[in-house]
Amino acid sequence: MSASRDIDSLIDMMARLPGLGPRSARRAVLHMIRKKELLLTPLADLMHHVAASVRECANCGNIGSADLCDICQSEKRATGEICVVEDVADLWAMERSAVFKGRYHVLGGTLSALDAVGPEELRIPRLVERVTEEGITEVILALNATVDGQTTAHYIADQLEGQVRLTSLAQGVPIGGELDYLDDGTITAALRARKEL
Amino acid sequence: MSASRDIDSLIDMMARLPGLGPRSARRAVLHMIRKKELLLTPLADLMHHVAASVRECANCGNIGSADLCDICQSEKRATGEICVVEDVADLWAMERSAVFKGRYHVLGGTLSALDAVGPEELRIPRLVERVTEEGITEVILALNATVDGQTTAHYIADQLEGQVRLTSLAQGVPIGGELDYLDDGTITAALRARKEL
Repeated sequence: MSASRDIDSLIDMMARLPGLGPRSARRAVLHMIRKKELLLTPLADLMHHVAASVRECANCGNIGSADLCDICQSEKRATGEICVVEDVADLWAMERSAVFKGRYHVLGGTLSALDAVGPEELRIPRLVERVTEEGITEVILALNATVDGQTTAHYIADQLEGQVRLTSLAQGVPIGGELDYLDDGTITAALRARKEL
Repeated sequence: MSASRDIDSLIDMMARLPGLGPRSARRAVLHMIRKKELLLTPLADLMHHVAASVRECANCGNIGSADLCDICQSEKRATGEICVVEDVADLWAMERSAVFKGRYHVLGGTLSALDAVGPEELRIPRLVERVTEEGITEVILALNATVDGQTTAHYIADQLEGQVRLTSLAQGVPIGGELDYLDDGTITAALRARKEL
């Protein structure tokens, strides 16, 4: 009896992952069982390994295996620029574009009165400290273009005003975007920020 | 460095699961890391446990924790009926409907000349043995309504002809189905098998 109860528990737990439902969890579990040696066991080993080694960077809030993450440890990234992002997924997205060469600061969310998230919960005081400690010249606010993201950006800008150059990501038409499918806000932003050819 | 390499490996491996791509694997891994105690560690434990205990039922091909699966072990299921399915996922689907009270026979695929899958690869000889050994009175062919599934059903029907009552699942309009969205084949099947009101 016990294996099928375990399989059921495994399916239930997999179904709690974002992007998976009960149906795709069942498919994934059957697939893993069929490829036990190639997938199920190595995946379990790797998860144990990550669970044991992963920790939050004391400086920027990124995840890594030491007290300081790879980016904060790297001397090459000490460019005097900090890019502020909401969470680690956003940091990864920035890193994939491989354009930004400075360091990051992961807030861990956005200010939200409804959810009682204030500046203390968001590593904002640490950001203000870092600007002085690391001799930062520019803080790039790469927060999501949502109401909460923009509120948070304004709050951070207030805190750092006069101490450092503050910039934010440009808003406009995404590459490959078709005007017909864009919302009014984006078109307005793109028109206002229009550039000379 | 090692934790982020491990995280990358974990994402790559998760992305190999059906229904997950690189993007959803990243989201799932970040979610698991955030809920390390609640999700990552228990999931790894459960996977190890399932990997160690799961095996194929020697009788029917279902998965379970002993040489015989729960269904083959249960005396309640000895109804003299065998439901033939392609794989374990189909067995689970049948079990969810909770209507069939007999035992199963999991083929592990369908006959396929292209993929060199013959009767020996599909536990068909074992099915023929079981019909005699277990005193089976009815074999229900619950194979998918695909070309390969129906070819396999015909082959099994040939093997068992005269020994046992052979039935297959009814074909027709699915519950909640709208005629406008059904293919011609289904409508033809439903019309031919029409019933008196």
